[in-house]
This record gives sequence, C-alpha cells and structure tokens, in this order.
Amino acid sequence: MAKQYVYLFKDAHGLGKEILGGKGAGLAEMTSIGVPIPPGFTVTTEACTLYHENEGKMPDYLIAQVDEGIKEVEKQTGKSFGGVDASKVPLLVSVRSGARVSMPGMMDTILNLGLNDTSVEELAKASGNERFAYDSYRRFILMFTNIAKGWPRTDMDKMLEEIKEKNGYKLDSEVTAEQLKELVKTYKEYYKKTFNEDFPSDPYVQLHEAVEAVFRSWDNPRANVYRKMNGIPYEWGTAVNVQSMVFGNLNENSGTGVAFSRDPSTGKKQIYAEYLPVAQGEDVVAGIRTPLHIDELKKRMPDVYDQFVKTITSMEAHYKDMQDMEYTVEDGKLYFLQTRNGKRTAQASLQIAFDLLDEGVIDESEAVLRVEPQLLDSLLHPTFDTTDLKSHTPVATGNPASPGAGVGKLAFDAKDAEKRHVNGEKVVLVRAETSPEDIEGMVAAEGILTMRGGMTSHAAVVARGMGKCCITGCSAAIVDEENKTLTINGKVYTENDTISLNGSTGDVYDGALKLVEADTSTGNFGRLMALADKYKRLSIRTNADTPRDALQAAKFGAEGIGLCRTEHMFFNKDRIFHMRKMILSDTTAEREAALAELLPYQREDFYGLYMSMKDLKEINVNIRLLDPPLHEFLPQEEDKIEELAKATGKTVQEIKDRIAYLHEFNPMMGHRGCRLDVSYPEIGRMQARAIIEAAIKASKELNREIQPEIMIPLTLDVKEFKFVKKVITDECDKVLAENNFTMKYHVGTMIEIPRAALLSGEIATEAEFYSFGTNDLTQMTFGFSRDDATKFLPDYYNNKIFEFDPFQTVDQKGVGKLIKMAVKDGKEVNERLLCGVCGEHGGDPRSIEFFNRVGLDYVSCSPFRVPIARLAAAQAEIKLEREKNK
Amino acid sequence: MAKQYVYLFKDAHGLGKEILGGKGAGLAEMTSIGVPIPPGFTVTTEACTLYHENEGKMPDYLIAQVDEGIKEVEKQTGKSFGGVDASKVPLLVSVRSGARVSMPGMMDTILNLGLNDTSVEELAKASGNERFAYDSYRRFILMFTNIAKGWPRTDMDKMLEEIKEKNGYKLDSEVTAEQLKELVKTYKEYYKKTFNEDFPSDPYVQLHEAVEAVFRSWDNPRANVYRKMNGIPYEWGTAVNVQSMVFGNLNENSGTGVAFSRDPSTGKKQIYAEYLPVAQGEDVVAGIRTPLHIDELKKRMPDVYDQFVKTITSMEAHYKDMQDMEYTVEDGKLYFLQTRNGKRTAQASLQIAFDLLDEGVIDESEAVLRVEPQLLDSLLHPTFDTTDLKSHTPVATGNPASPGAGVGKLAFDAKDAEKRHVNGEKVVLVRAETSPEDIEGMVAAEGILTMRGGMTSHAAVVARGMGKCCITGCSAAIVDEENKTLTINGKVYTENDTISLNGSTGDVYDGALKLVEADTSTGNFGRLMALADKYKRLSIRTNADTPRDALQAAKFGAEGIGLCRTEHMFFNKDRIFHMRKMILSDTTAEREAALAELLPYQREDFYGLYMSMKDLKEINVNIRLLDPPLHEFLPQEEDKIEELAKATGKTVQEIKDRIAYLHEFNPMMGHRGCRLDVSYPEIGRMQARAIIEAAIKASKELNREIQPEIMIPLTLDVKEFKFVKKVITDECDKVLAENNFTMKYHVGTMIEIPRAALLSGEIATEAEFYSFGTNDLTQMTFGFSRDDATKFLPDYYNNKIFEFDPFQTVDQKGVGKLIKMAVKDGKEVNERLLCGVCGEHGGDPRSIEFFNRVGLDYVSCSPFRVPIARLAAAQAEIKLEREKNK
Repeated sequence: MAKQYVYLFKDAHGLGKEILGGKGAGLAEMTSIGVPIPPGFTVTTEACTLYHENEGKMPDYLIAQVDEGIKEVEKQTGKSFGGVDASKVPLLVSVRSGARVSMPGMMDTILNLGLNDTSVEELAKASGNERFAYDSYRRFILMFTNIAKGWPRTDMDKMLEEIKEKNGYKLDSEVTAEQLKELVKTYKEYYKKTFNEDFPSDPYVQLHEAVEAVFRSWDNPRANVYRKMNGIPYEWGTAVNVQSMVFGNLNENSGTGVAFSRDPSTGKKQIYAEYLPVAQGEDVVAGIRTPLHIDELKKRMPDVYDQFVKTITSMEAHYKDMQDMEYTVEDGKLYFLQTRNGKRTAQASLQIAFDLLDEGVIDESEAVLRVEPQLLDSLLHPTFDTTDLKSHTPVATGNPASPGAGVGKLAFDAKDAEKRHVNGEKVVLVRAETSPEDIEGMVAAEGILTMRGGMTSHAAVVARGMGKCCITGCSAAIVDEENKTLTINGKVYTENDTISLNGSTGDVYDGALKLVEADTSTGNFGRLMALADKYKRLSIRTNADTPRDALQAAKFGAEGIGLCRTEHMFFNKDRIFHMRKMILSDTTAEREAALAELLPYQREDFYGLYMSMKDLKEINVNIRLLDPPLHEFLPQEEDKIEELAKATGKTVQEIKDRIAYLHEFNPMMGHRGCRLDVSYPEIGRMQARAIIEAAIKASKELNREIQPEIMIPLTLDVKEFKFVKKVITDECDKVLAENNFTMKYHVGTMIEIPRAALLSGEIATEAEFYSFGTNDLTQMTFGFSRDDATKFLPDYYNNKIFEFDPFQTVDQKGVGKLIKMAVKDGKEVNERLLCGVCGEHGGDPRSIEFFNRVGLDYVSCSPFRVPIARLAAAQAEIKLEREKNK
Repeated sequence: MAKQYVYLFKDAHGLGKEILGGKGAGLAEMTSIGVPIPPGFTVTTEACTLYHENEGKMPDYLIAQVDEGIKEVEKQTGKSFGGVDASKVPLLVSVRSGARVSMPGMMDTILNLGLNDTSVEELAKASGNERFAYDSYRRFILMFTNIAKGWPRTDMDKMLEEIKEKNGYKLDSEVTAEQLKELVKTYKEYYKKTFNEDFPSDPYVQLHEAVEAVFRSWDNPRANVYRKMNGIPYEWGTAVNVQSMVFGNLNENSGTGVAFSRDPSTGKKQIYAEYLPVAQGEDVVAGIRTPLHIDELKKRMPDVYDQFVKTITSMEAHYKDMQDMEYTVEDGKLYFLQTRNGKRTAQASLQIAFDLLDEGVIDESEAVLRVEPQLLDSLLHPTFDTTDLKSHTPVATGNPASPGAGVGKLAFDAKDAEKRHVNGEKVVLVRAETSPEDIEGMVAAEGILTMRGGMTSHAAVVARGMGKCCITGCSAAIVDEENKTLTINGKVYTENDTISLNGSTGDVYDGALKLVEADTSTGNFGRLMALADKYKRLSIRTNADTPRDALQAAKFGAEGIGLCRTEHMFFNKDRIFHMRKMILSDTTAEREAALAELLPYQREDFYGLYMSMKDLKEINVNIRLLDPPLHEFLPQEEDKIEELAKATGKTVQEIKDRIAYLHEFNPMMGHRGCRLDVSYPEIGRMQARAIIEAAIKASKELNREIQPEIMIPLTLDVKEFKFVKKVITDECDKVLAENNFTMKYHVGTMIEIPRAALLSGEIATEAEFYSFGTNDLTQMTFGFSRDDATKFLPDYYNNKIFEFDPFQTVDQKGVGKLIKMAVKDGKEVNERLLCGVCGEHGGDPRSIEFFNRVGLDYVSCSPFRVPIARLAAAQAEIKLEREKNK
C-alpha cells in the first residue's frame, strides 16, 4: 500500500509542519479547536519531493489519494465537485501552497477551481448572482492559464481592459454579467489557440494540474532566492492545501479581510483588522480595492463581529502568540481561512513578547525565544522615516552589505571624504571598490557605496565592523573615480549632489531622505538584553581594532575584545611609511630599526584598547599578531613608488624588485600569519613588547589586573606554535623584567587552517586559547577564496548545490566537523583551553546556535552584532536545554 | 635515581638502534658475538635529547655516568685514562657520533682524547715511538680545537705547512718528532691566545667537552640538510660512542683499513677491502694517503689475514647482509672498530639481495625488503660514464628535479628546441622558467634547465612525468631568453654551446660528458619486479597524458592509467585556438560550437590512451575532466592578444576585458575543477562524449571490454558531485544509445579539498571511486600554495618546524588523517568504492607505505616512478604483514 500523502484537515492534527507545511498544520489545528474553517485537505510536503523526484509527474497512487480527498470534502460539505451532481450546490476549491515556514508571495495559488460551463450556471443559480458566477469563472480561467500553464497574463488582462475602454467603464465591477460571459468565451478561445487544446472542463483534470503547478512553484526563481536568503532547504518542499471555496463576494452579507490579534507594527494589545465587503481575498492582495476598518464589519453584522473577536482571542490563547489570520464572511457566516504567527516589526516583537510574559501566557525563556535576533539590527542604526521612504523610489539597488541609513554629498576618494568631514560636511563615500587605504575615508563617511564587491568584500566587512551603512556591488551605479562622477540610469551625479543609502535593503535614492535616530535605551530593549544575559552560556566579545569600535561594543554589552586585527593599525598615513621601510629592509638590523619606529604607535593603540574596556568587569583584550602578507602594505601606483623611493633612499627599481619578489600567486595561501614571525621574529617581538608595555601602563593607571591575550594567527603545527610562542614569551618576560612588574599573560592561536584543527590534540598542549577564524577556515576547507567564489557561487545557488552562503552561516557538515573535532581533542588534553570564534560567523544567530552546541566558550563579532549575538546565545542555550530535558 | 644514559658495549646488546644509535648497537652486537673490538661505551640518543632540552648542557648526573663509564673501560683495558696512573699504559679514547641511521660524514669525531703533556710521554714510552706520540697529540689538539671549540682549522694547518716548507718536506711523515713537539707548543699557544684559556690537560674536561661537541654536531647545518633530505626526525638525536683507541700507526705491525664483505659496486660475492700500513683511519678518510690492496695485509701478517677473513665471514653470516667495516691492526693484533650494513649501488643492491636469497641466507620477502626503492631510479635513466663524470667539475648546481643525464646544445625557446630536434640536433632547453606552452619543446629536448622554480615547479613536475632529465632553480645560471644567452660565472654560452645536465645531482657541466644507456632488462631487475608483484597488495597505475608516456609506463609495469590530465592536451597549437575561442564565448551556443571543434582532438587523445593499454590484462584508463581555471589558457602578451583578436573577430579590448574578468586573486582557490562544469556543463559534456566515443572505437577495434573511468576534480559536496555526474552520465548514455553500444563506465572523483574528505560518507554514496589528489589536498590542508611556500619553507626547515617537504612525502598527521577518515567513511557506505592516490606522493616510498596501511587500492605515479612504486608497495605490505604477525 502506498504511503499516505493526503490528509483531511480534520484528521491531520498533530502531524506537524514538516509534513503538512505551516498553513496545513494551522488548518488542522484550527479544525481541532473548533475554529470555523471551510473543509479541505492537505497534500503533504513529502508528495512535493515525490513529484520532483518522479521527474515532475504525480504517480497514479498519489492522484488517487487526491481524488479520494475531494470525495471526502464533497461529503463534508454536501456539495458536488465541479457541479457533476446537478442536484447539489457545486463544490469549488482553492489550491494553495504551504511550506514549512511562511514564504509570503513566493509561490502560487489558484482559486475557484471546479468551475466549468455547467457548474458556473449552478453557481449562478445557487448564489442568485450570475455576474458573480461568471466573474469567478473568468478569474479562474485566467489564474489557471497563468499559473497551471505558466502563461503570461498580459493578453488576458488586455481583453478585460478593452471591454472597459469600449464601454467607458472605470471599475471592473462595472462590467456586466453578459460581458463577462463573452469574456469567458474569448478567454477559452485564446486558451485553445495558445495550447492547441480545449480549456479543461473536467474538474479533476483542473485539480491535478493545479496541484502540480503548486509543486512546481517550489522551484520557481523567486522561491529559490527567498530560500537562499532565509536558509530554507530545498528538500523541505511545499505542501498543497485544497480547501472548499467560500465567497466573500457572494452578496452584501459577504466580505473578506485580514486580522492580527495584536498590532504588528507597535505590538499594542488590540485587534488590528480590516474588512472589505463583497470581495475576495485576491482583491485585497492585488491592491485593486482598499479595505475598510474592522468597525465596518461590526456595523454591518454585529453578531458575526462578536464571533470574530471571540475566535481571534481564543486562537491567540491557543497559539500563545500574536496571530495573523485571513477570514471570509459568506452570506453572514464567518470562516477563517488561515492563521499563522504574525510577522512584526522589531519594536512590536519585543513589546508582544514582554506583554505575553507579563500576562503569564509564556515564561521568561519563551519570551527570549520570541524575538528574532536579526530583527534587533534595525533598532541599532539610524533609519529612514517610514513615510518619507514610501514616497521615494530607489534609483538603483546593490547588496545590503551593512544596515543603516546614510545621507550625504558624494565623495570619490577617501582623503576627500576625510577633509570634507572635518569641515563639517556630510558625505557618502562612492568608490568602484574600497581598499585598506580607504579606511579613514570610510570612518568619515555617512555611508559607503561601491560599484563592485559582494556581501563579504572589503567594504562590506569593514563597514559592518564599524556599524556603518554600506551598499556594495551596485553595478547600476557607474563610478568614474578619476572624473569624480557617478552615473545611474544615464543621470550624472557629481560631488555636489546628495544621495541616500538604505543599507538594510541595498536601495540607493536620489536626494536626501529624512532620518530617524535609533533608540537603544528603550525599556524593552534593555529588559531583553538582561534576560538574554541571564540565559546564555556563551560569552560575547567583539572584534574591534580601535577604541572607538571597542567603546561602541562595550555600550552594546560586549564582555571584551575577542579579536584586534593589528594590521588595520598600519594603514594610517603616519605609520604606513615605517611599515613600508620595515618591509623594504635588507637586514634584520634595518628591519628592527623600522619596527622601533612603529612601536610607540602600537603601544598607544593597545593602551587605548585596554582603557576602552575599563568599565567592564574584566579587561579581556585579545590581540592578534600581524596577519596579511607584506605586499599588501606596499604601494602599487608609480607616483607612490617614486615618493617611497625618495623617502627611503632606495631606488625605484629596488622597490619594484621587492614588490616583484613579494608577489604571490595565491596570497591567501602565502607568506602571512605566523609564517611572518617564523621568518622575521623581530616583528612578533615588537608587537609583544607593545602589548605588554601598554598593558602595564593601563594596569598601573587603572590600578586593575590585566591579563593580555596574545593570539598567533594561521598556526598549522605545534612546533610552529612553540617556536613563535617562545619568541613572544621571551620578549614579554623581558619587558616585564625591565619594568619590574608581574603580570599573567596568555598565548593562544587562531584555528583557521584545516591542519590546525586536525592536530588540535597536539597544539592544545601548548596553546592557552583557541579562536576559530571561521572566515579562513571556511575558505581553506572549501578550497575557494571568497573573493573568487563570487564568480561561481551564483551557479551553485541556481543549481541548488548550495542553499546558503557558507561565509555567512557556518557550514556545520564540513567546517563544523573540524571545529567540533578541534574543541573535543583540544579540551581533552587541556581542560582549561578557552575556545572562541572570531570570524564573521560569530555574529550569525544560526552559527551561534552551533557554536553553543559544540561547547565553545565565547563568540566575538563586530560591535553592532553584539546585541544580536547576546540574544542568539541565549536562545541557543534555551533550545539546547529543552532538547536535553526532552 | 637518574635514568641510565651510559652503557658499556659489553652490556648493551639488545637495546636497539633507537637508544644506542647504529654504531653503538653494532659495537654491542659485535661484542656479544665475540668480534675483537676495543672496549668502550655508548652515551645514548636519549642523552642527546636531554642535552638539547637542557639548553646545551649535560646535567651532573649524566656527567657522572660518563665518568663511571671511563672507569669501567680502565678496568677492562688495564690502562689509565689520561695517564694519571703513571704505572699503567695511558688510556686514550675516540669520541664518535652514531645516529639511529648512518649519516656518513655529517657529524663529528675526535680521536686520541686523553692526551696531555704527561700521557704523551707515557704513550711515547709504551709505544717506543716518540714521533707517533707527538703526532697523535698534535692531531688531537687540532681536532679538539676544530670540533669541540668550533674553531676553523686553517691557521693550524698552515702552521704545519710552514714547517714543511721551511724544511723542504713534501710529506707529513717527514716532519720529525722534535718538530712535532714544537708544533704542539705552538698549537697550545695559539689555543690560549684564541680562547683566553689553557688547553685543557684534564682528560675528563676534554671528554665532557668532546661529548657535548658531538651532541651539538647533531644540530649542525649539514646534518640538518641531510636529515631533511632523508626524512630523519630531529627528535631521534645521536648517540656518542667513547671507545679506547687502538693505533694503526703504532709500528710496522700496525695498519688500518675498511672492508666490505661483498663488492659494494657490483655486488659480487668477494671480500672487498683495503689496507694501509702504519696509519690511522683518519689518514684514509682525509685522502692524505692512498690505501693498498688487502693482499698487502695477507703478505705482511698471514695469520691476522686469516682471522680477518674468518671474522668478516662470520659477521656477514650474523647480520645476513653485506657488511661495511672499519678495522685496525695494532702491533699485530686485529680490532674491528665498527660494522654496518654497507651502502651499495643499485646494481649491487639487487645482486646481493638475490645472492643471499639463493644462498638460503634470507627468504623472498626479505630479499624484496633489501633493495632501497629510490635506488631503482638510477637503473631507469641514461647516466654519465662514472670515470668521465669524475674528471669534470660542475659549473653550477640547481635542484635535482628529475633524474637522468642530458647533453645537448642550448635552445632558448620551446619552438626552437622542437625545430632543431626535428632536424636531428640534440638540444637542452634552457628557460628562466617553463610554462605549459613549453611542453612540446620539453619533449624534444634531452634535458631541461631552468633558472627559477623548485622541486615541484612546472618544469620539475612535467619533466618527472616524462622521465626527462631536469634541473630547476639553478640561480647561478642567468638566462636571457631574449638575447638567447646563458651566463654562468661570467662565461656566456650561446646556442652553439653544449652543456651536460646531471638531473640526479643537479649539477651542470660545460661541454659534453660521455653517456651510458640504462639497461632495465637485466635479469635481476626483472626478477625483483616479479617478486614485488607477488608480494604487493596495491595496484600501481601511472599518471599519463599521452600515449608516449602511457606506453613507457606500461613497459615499466603500470597496471593502468590512474590520472590523465586533460588540460595538458589543450596547449598544442592546433587546439589552443579553439580552447581560447571557447573561453571568449559570450553564449552557450558559441561555447558549444568551439567545444565541437575540440571534440575530435580529445577523442583522438583518448583513443590513443586506450590503445596504449592494449597489451595489459585490463584496460584501465582514468580520465579527469578539465581542471585549471580558464585564464590559464589565455595569452598574456600584447602581440598574442592581437593575434587572437584577429583570429576570433573580437576586439583587443574585448579580449582584455575577458582576461581582466577572469583574473583571480587566488587562482588555486578559484573557478576551476568541477566548478567549471557547474557553470558550463557543456565542457564536461564534450569531454564525456569524447571519452565514450573513443572507448567505443578502441573497444570495437580491439574486440575487448573497456570500462571508462571518468573523474570529476575538486568536488566538495555530494550535491555538487551529483550535479556534474548527471551531466556526464546523461551525455555518456546518449552517446551509447546513438552508437547502439553497451558499455559499463564509472564516475568518481578526486578527493583534494578538505571538505570532500570530511564529507566522504555522503560523497561515497554517489561516487564509484576516489582518487586522492594529495598535491592539492596538502596545499589546502596546510593552507599554503606550493609556489608561494618556497619563500618561507626554508625558514621552517632551519627552525626545525618541518623536517621534510610535505609535497614530497605525505603528511600523515594532517593530510593523512583526512585520507584515513575519508577511506574509512567512504568504504563504510560503499564497500565497492575504489580508492587510489594520484598526487606526487603516489611515487614516494614512504608515502606508499602509509597508503598501503590505510587501505587504499592503488597508487598512480609518473611513468618512471612505476618500478619504484611496485617495489615500495611490496615492501609496505611485507612490513604490514610482519607487524600483524608480531
């Protein structure tokens, strides 16, 4: 016997969303608690998988189950499907998708299915409304043609428009029954001409094709994009819900609408609903008619309204969350068509969670789970005024690389941006793409727009670190850096023009949009963070290279600095010269002399970082030694090389020779990280000295204990680690002795090379802490660089090989396996080994859930991700506890 | 109580080489079987480690044990150390290194230790030879100064020369006792001036310093280089052997020499020995005097000679292998000073193994173990005539990238080499470095010399594949490709000059050296290979891209092709144009048209490969789909771009734009391997068609079954594999249907990305075979590219972080862990999964031992490594079996 793929709503309760989809599960559950819903059945998500695996055909045994479902619905309703039995009212059905999680608007729906030349007449009779019957029929033919057959609706829309034009009608409702009858004929002729076959009158044929169309819509491009964005696996598939139609457009005692059990925008505890008399839901969705306030229903049918309020209240009580419902009134009888947990704004999300908590509906841990961590982001950045935003149309769209809003005049290079910023001008930095030399310009700008680059390009990563609004890869914005122009759709913008950037959507606007400052001190926000801290196990640190970032992160609740990338400190123009001199050195002595010039700067940097943590319980600052290959610091441009030659006394040729010598085929896999310290221990020695000297100074000044953490990057072998560690500890001990000062310090390593993870059992005998550098670890484990992968990853998404970006959410199967292994092997030989993560993934909620599960001790993320990480860490631990208690 | 670090020879038997070192173990064993050896003791290898860990000082308890050892030797010999007890003959000792494996000439030795102003007189008295005593003393001072104190011997050698000059002496032996006495004084003054302290007269002080000096010599640069070359771990350390001196230079009844129990050059069963009367071993080693034939000993002391022959015979019988011994006759008494298994030529190695087998001394499996696989290499390539080689001095030395000998006139570009080769000229291809476009020139050349590049550069890898002599990275050879000159030490060579290359040593010679052809058909070679095949479990395949290579490999016993890299086929000038057209295509249709032009070439290539295997039992040919990133195929030079523009009808700018678009930051981690097939399935489709069409043609022609193996490179996910596999199998099935032909074919993958190894349990459900691409897997696992690593790996060797090149011998801890895991997980879900390896490591004996151990089914290596791999595979399996039976 074949597996059961079809369940009546009334029999399906308890099967769950995995099988029934969200909508199907909701309908089953509503049925079980007595909410009035039109009868129907669900074709399961497993049937969807079956359909796709069966090369896009439903097997006969599946068709048989669907047909059986219809027969049951005929029994429940007493109606006849497609009006075959003329003695009964015709049964019409809707056919809708329903995935495990809501994917609004992504898939297809067909209404009024079951209409044909016979049943339309019966419907006209039964409803006493011929115009309604034929309008339903023509809509069905249009939807079927468009969705089941995948044919564009343009021609058919035009046919209706022509009737309206010829007769001087303005509204669809002016079209008469007779004219609609004619239109149905025209539609059917068009259908026959197009597909070389008659429009199917057999309601079962209609149904089978419609179900298949919904299955197919799981694989349409917009669904695929949505899934990728939201990390929904393709395998899940969608269920199909076949439900008997009720008609909100049947007569004056009919209508339709949507309702929220609380206000989705503010979270206020009051029903938020609309009612549109004499209409089908479609009219609302399509925006053809504007719904009225719910008072309209109260006015027209007070009894129905009372039942409406009571049902909504009971549904919310049942689901213990704010519900978003569709309902229809047919000839004075109320039906609910679907319910789901309602989408809400960040503000509403917090409000509702705490109201439900305070009402005693949910407990604390549940309240913590109720707020989507990503939502918090919108509460941290200045945003555009919603009304103003609605009245503007974007002129271009790029990658929403770093959220927030930025408004300013155009600056085409970093120096210019800096200068104008100092002069009090608000500027937006516009570049083809950014490089490390642009950093100070990025700090000065209100936002950053680049023509090239993805979500993980230099601009994107740095901007997110700063919490600065940024849009990358906006290919419609053609940047001419030389002539200082930006061209969008042929319009040329110059330095005096203003644009607005919405980093949350990637939209670029002409002119200045109105800004609203973010308010992070509201009671709910603080209350949520306090609860999160109560439930989380992971510590949350921040990745910060400057006191400015560190202070911002501390304000957001960071418990320390998990990663300070020292290389960013060398791009400042006072320092880069010494850095370059160091790189151009021919002897160790020369190199040491140049390093000595860098020492005071580094010491000041680190001192600043220690001081920025002074209000925290512990002063935890993890400083990573120099990481990038040296060639990244050398100039490329002829004039800059000449300048450098003059300044260093080297010849231009000597400098070019050094640049050529340092050239690498694969810089990602080149002479970088601790490999630099193996070749030039004096570099690590200078950095160790700067760290300890800074820590001594801060410790004395604050009269507090500081235990510096020194992180060795790119380790791949325990002997390598020992070698560099000895260089570091020798110098640290020397500095402490010179200062006659006692201080504990810790030396650990990044785990970012697969071999390091594989050999963790050895490395952990020497290392005091691990910080998983999941960016590089992902690159090495996958064998692709994120810069180069942008060219082929789209093909991987399109072909469903990847369903999410492994640089955004950690790959649990591969990279995660290495992390799990490394933590286990490492803690086995060194139970005091502190394990954290400091890649981009440290701020990603799904990744944080994984990190919590495998036993990391902390995550470190960019300052503006800290609140998100705190909440995600709490949710992760709550979920884990619940699993354990199962 | 402290651990025992010092063992008398007579008490040490059975402790093994790990503790005693090779020499110490030999002395202990000889003592135990009654060979006459001077008494002494061994300071263990563990003491060496202790010394180095103790920051280069011997702890007191170790010193005490050493002193105790001397006391015991005094008892055994009845002599007095350093002549303290004037009533006894003075005890002098030698202090020699002795590592676990022999490292000839790499470490230091001090003789005559114990001499001082007192004991020298006693020695003079005891020997009745004052000149001998003072010559011994001055030698000791010189050695002590040079080795224990690390001071250059130049000045002291000069002092002796001055005496000889002043007196008109030609030989050292003409210097008189009085003059030697004076010289000792001069030496001691020199010592005092240099070190600001008296030369130590206390024999214990002398001893302690000497032992420490030997420990230190474990860490000298030449020892480190030797260890790296031979894969000897630093941790092993060296033992020190302290042995009472016997004097071959005591009187006319004394002498010294070396002896082999069989001829080390031919393997012939006859004692091969030399005797030098009135001399110490040092004289022989330093080449100061030329030893005489052993008949000299027979003539002078027939009894001693008889004992000599008897002892040698019994020692060989005991060790069951040809012995290399040092012996000394002191005043008519025979002593052996050391014995070890003798080094031998490849030819002798085979001869001895089979003679011992035939004599019934060893069994078959032992005979297989007796031949060092690497030695076979010298039997496969033409070599230089040994005598002629000795009479020439190299003018430059580079990396011995591919063994063999090459003699020819200089050709500075590939085309030129090809043309001149066709005209019958013998040429050597000389390039700054080679690129894939040079391949046909490399085929045409007798040998290849490059100025840049390491052991794994393009030239090196390709040349080894061809079995062509090649020297890379010869930086003293300055190549000016434009002006067609090669400059070495100021001498300019042009196209008409001839050079000779020794690919086995890296030496470059001016002029033409005499060549001797290799003979691989000798009986012993064939017999060894037959035995190897009997004992090995692994199959041996070859990496071959051309029928020429494939035939060569088949001749050497390859059982199939394990890797055909299809990309090498596209560089031929007829094809590269179509390849470039394909890459420049703007549409799929355009690309398919260009691919259609390439199809006939590919089909012919594959047909040729199948036919080249026709004499083998099975026709196994594994063809890998296109692997490198596309930009590698595009021209870089302006003129070639223009040429291409004309030929394709594109503009120069369009081509440059495409080149710029295809540019990658890290090409190793870029758009390559199966990623190309995901983006452009038509490429894989063309290759699949070519493979199947070729296989059908060959199968029909040979009337034999062929089961093509199609390998997907760079897989990292099972979905990716499934996607590409479907592209391939759809096309294969289509081709078979078109031809109405039935044929099994297999689709598998390279495992060369860490993630693929980690997810093997999933990938193996779809893949029919794995081939570990250990080159890339090593790069990704270590996170460095081999091209870029050449810059910092020397620092890793110097600092003893790495002790061998992971691209030469597989890294068992990291890469090996992944391989082991992948094989286990893969075979668990798919027991028929065929697992092989096709990286450079497939031809490395130590790696093969590992691959055999973890259960691979085959290794694939370049044609000239096939015999080595066969032997190594047999040895691996024999060792494994022995372990199991332990």
